[in-house]
Amino acid sequence: MLKGCATAPAKTILLGEHFVVYGEPAIVTAIDRKAKVTAQESPGTSIHITSDLGCGTFEGADFKTSDSCRKVRRILEPIRISTQSVLDYLKLKRGLDVNVESVIPVGVGLGSSSAISVATVAAVGRLFDGRLSTSDIFSLALDAEKFVHGNPSGIDQQVSAFGGILLYRKGGTSTRLQCPVELPLVIGNTGESRTTGRLVESVRQRHERLPNIMNQLIKVAGGLVEEGAAALKKGDLQRFAELMDINHGLLVSAGVSTEALDRLAHAAKAAGALGAKLTGAGGGGCIVAMSEPGEQSKVAEGIKRAGGEPIIVEKADTGVQSWLEK
Amino acid sequence: MLKGCATAPAKTILLGEHFVVYGEPAIVTAIDRKAKVTAQESPGTSIHITSDLGCGTFEGADFKTSDSCRKVRRILEPIRISTQSVLDYLKLKRGLDVNVESVIPVGVGLGSSSAISVATVAAVGRLFDGRLSTSDIFSLALDAEKFVHGNPSGIDQQVSAFGGILLYRKGGTSTRLQCPVELPLVIGNTGESRTTGRLVESVRQRHERLPNIMNQLIKVAGGLVEEGAAALKKGDLQRFAELMDINHGLLVSAGVSTEALDRLAHAAKAAGALGAKLTGAGGGGCIVAMSEPGEQSKVAEGIKRAGGEPIIVEKADTGVQSWLEK
Repeated sequence: MLKGCATAPAKTILLGEHFVVYGEPAIVTAIDRKAKVTAQESPGTSIHITSDLGCGTFEGADFKTSDSCRKVRRILEPIRISTQSVLDYLKLKRGLDVNVESVIPVGVGLGSSSAISVATVAAVGRLFDGRLSTSDIFSLALDAEKFVHGNPSGIDQQVSAFGGILLYRKGGTSTRLQCPVELPLVIGNTGESRTTGRLVESVRQRHERLPNIMNQLIKVAGGLVEEGAAALKKGDLQRFAELMDINHGLLVSAGVSTEALDRLAHAAKAAGALGAKLTGAGGGGCIVAMSEPGEQSKVAEGIKRAGGEPIIVEKADTGVQSWLEK
Repeated sequence: MLKGCATAPAKTILLGEHFVVYGEPAIVTAIDRKAKVTAQESPGTSIHITSDLGCGTFEGADFKTSDSCRKVRRILEPIRISTQSVLDYLKLKRGLDVNVESVIPVGVGLGSSSAISVATVAAVGRLFDGRLSTSDIFSLALDAEKFVHGNPSGIDQQVSAFGGILLYRKGGTSTRLQCPVELPLVIGNTGESRTTGRLVESVRQRHERLPNIMNQLIKVAGGLVEEGAAALKKGDLQRFAELMDINHGLLVSAGVSTEALDRLAHAAKAAGALGAKLTGAGGGGCIVAMSEPGEQSKVAEGIKRAGGEPIIVEKADTGVQSWLEK
């Protein structure tokens, strides 16, 4: 039986997270860790989802699972909604088996959820020959995630769909940044999970208490992103990494770093990284370090010795990809 | 035989270090850890110095010591010069026994050297009934330290001589800040020594590479100090401590924090501190945490568990004090 297949990459924010909420730009890159989704028709109208994180069957919004874990529904719901959104868009009513395989760590700011949504939309679209454009895939995945996650910025879905490095501005147009060299990145996962919403809220409260100070910090972040975009275009990794270091300090000032994030950032640099910062919401999750070319494994070793889980990655120039399999 | 005795307090910088080099103000407080110096006449014209850190005899600039340690001269030289500066000021030529007892950790940014110089000047002045004013003591101690340390800002000597909390501006006048409450501070010593000059130079280099970004950061630091002065006047420790947290992030951005400093700052806050930051030059040395009133021992415990040496202190309203003993 024909299968629609798709992969979509994870992401890491290189500069500007949090301050993006206040209108400053951010730089985010797709990375070569992917979610893969396959979709094939099944009898009836139910959507059956299998994944490493659990499986279950949706009949409309009704959910059945053999798993005892209640969390499974929360994990599978966005996949169901992404699937359904494509069926609705194509005006189809079908039963589907959807399988998700992902090597993206979950809940640590690497855009796992968005990569899965994007790949799901693309796989289902490809199965029914929907000829969805990348923009369509982005929009459908974003709509599906809005349903589940409230009001996501769209940055994750965008970079996963289009790939590459994006200069992103909330509510504005994103531009793709060309970088003439590889980005030898090393992610360091603290293993601490966190809730993005709570961290965004804690920064908002600090902003409310100290608006002048925080507005000045936000401007510094905007300046960092501008300088960073220029450095990337020149392939000046050393300068870009110094900006990452400074950005980490701003995030410390915003109150979102933790002992583990600081420890991994120092460990990465002690092991030879040019610079390092927390990436994403903070409060746990990951750091991202810029290595010198060819030195990623040393940096990874340093992160590991400091208690983190290192993940060696490169930027991914390609976003979502889909194909048919027999 | 009559002894001139004096004590002078250590200091800790609460807000604004490093950025003070670029013209922004800083807030520094004297703390209730003191150096004590006693001076008495001895036959001849040599100056014999005894201290916990070593002892030796100066005949003019010639130095003799029974200690094998070469470092001793470097430690005792400022004491000799402080002593000599008072003798010169009073136009006296005498032999002296000078004894130094200090409970201020050395080389970690708490102003140990300045407190000793200030107390030395005051003790020698008192011995000869020099009726030195506090301003005289400050000036003589600063001149003596200039001879040894190149071009010190004078902040350490000033706060040690006058006591209290100072709003300090490089090359300008300092004003004393009144704070209606105690400051329940806890110092956390990493035990890592560092060279202030090297750290000031590293910030200068970052400033040279990224002047726009660094100038913006410097302005944020200035804003923090203004807000901090207002919070102190109201006795709003919570707000002041939040500004300390933000200031720590700026110092991370300036590149002067270390894994140990970040670790102790997090540990202090996890143990209940309202806020914490590195204090002084960074690159090692100490953090300073603002505790809630009555909770200093809990914060100290947290710092200890994280591998630091905790020192519970309060602001010292009194600066240098001198008296005669028989």
